[in-house]
Amino acid sequence: MSSTILYGYWRSSASYRVRIALAWKGIAYTYVPVNLLDGEQRSEAHLARNPMGYVPAVEVDGELFTESLAIFELLDGLHPETPRLFSAEPRRRARQLAACHTIASGIQPLQNLSVLGKLPLDAEGKKAWAQHFISHGFTALERQLQAEPSATGFAMGDAFSAVDACIVPQIYAAKRFDVDLAPYPRIVRAYETAGSLAAVAGAAPERQIDAKL
Amino acid sequence: MSSTILYGYWRSSASYRVRIALAWKGIAYTYVPVNLLDGEQRSEAHLARNPMGYVPAVEVDGELFTESLAIFELLDGLHPETPRLFSAEPRRRARQLAACHTIASGIQPLQNLSVLGKLPLDAEGKKAWAQHFISHGFTALERQLQAEPSATGFAMGDAFSAVDACIVPQIYAAKRFDVDLAPYPRIVRAYETAGSLAAVAGAAPERQIDAKL
Repeated sequence: MSSTILYGYWRSSASYRVRIALAWKGIAYTYVPVNLLDGEQRSEAHLARNPMGYVPAVEVDGELFTESLAIFELLDGLHPETPRLFSAEPRRRARQLAACHTIASGIQPLQNLSVLGKLPLDAEGKKAWAQHFISHGFTALERQLQAEPSATGFAMGDAFSAVDACIVPQIYAAKRFDVDLAPYPRIVRAYETAGSLAAVAGAAPERQIDAKL
Repeated sequence: MSSTILYGYWRSSASYRVRIALAWKGIAYTYVPVNLLDGEQRSEAHLARNPMGYVPAVEVDGELFTESLAIFELLDGLHPETPRLFSAEPRRRARQLAACHTIASGIQPLQNLSVLGKLPLDAEGKKAWAQHFISHGFTALERQLQAEPSATGFAMGDAFSAVDACIVPQIYAAKRFDVDLAPYPRIVRAYETAGSLAAVAGAAPERQIDAKL
């Protein structure tokens, strides 16, 4: 029996992605909160888990792994008996990965709190910056999803995938920054479709033990 | 016989990564430059290839793919007879992916020219911003590589991998921003080791048909 520990933070997008992925695959895990407001992510104990000083980190049988999309692939590789996050077909997988990267490298790094904190802008300026990069990425993502018919509403094709696991936390962040979601009907439909799954609902930030409401 | 077209730009990090990957795998391709200085990446013709308005895009038998790391996986999937970019072993693969993401989502998005252009900072301030994020990411990456012994000098283990294909362009960018590389001996060793390969040398920005020297 393998042991899985998730080091995360309730509001972190990347932690949220991994909570969704673990729940979707039905993998039991221990959740260990890392308090970003107290600077715990910069402690040597946490840097040994994640050298970037970010969350999440996942420990599987004592070995540590970082980066949410790398963790997705790890989970598909270690738990082939559980529902897949990525297709095994190379072209479809590449399209799923590209949509995930639109969020994970095209949007999220530019609007996370540590980057916003370094911007020489006032609160309104920081919000406009975040809105700009979320809208730019969502415009691209909407186009990516429009090219992928779905009878069910999931992001790419008829089944839940890694793309949905990335969309849900990014919409959560977009709402915090008051982004107008009207131009992105396909993304919003995927968000709502995924949100109806118990695995996704249970991964919500407000339902974590470290949530400060 | 499959046909492969790379839409790229000589100085783009992500284009450079994909040139290295294609050459390493020995995949013949047609190179179509997209002139970022003329704004060609924002044309509808290019947005149809890459909805983010970024480079690269790769066209395989008429189908378009974006995001360098997704393209790496596509190439491994479509050309299993060529040298691999990622290990097939899930844990090793996850560590390689995490190191690639340290560069592709942890560093590059924060110091690319379109983001620097939006920063309300003067030239010196933009340079300091880029140096900060490159140094932060390299500090983490150095630690990731130190944990992976290599007899040959490559980034992770004894063979060239996707990690090396990400390191070479990121060092190229670091040099443009005058980043002090002394604290990162393991990264520099991987850069120099990879640079001795003909596949890597031939992918250098200055050797592309659109290079403006």
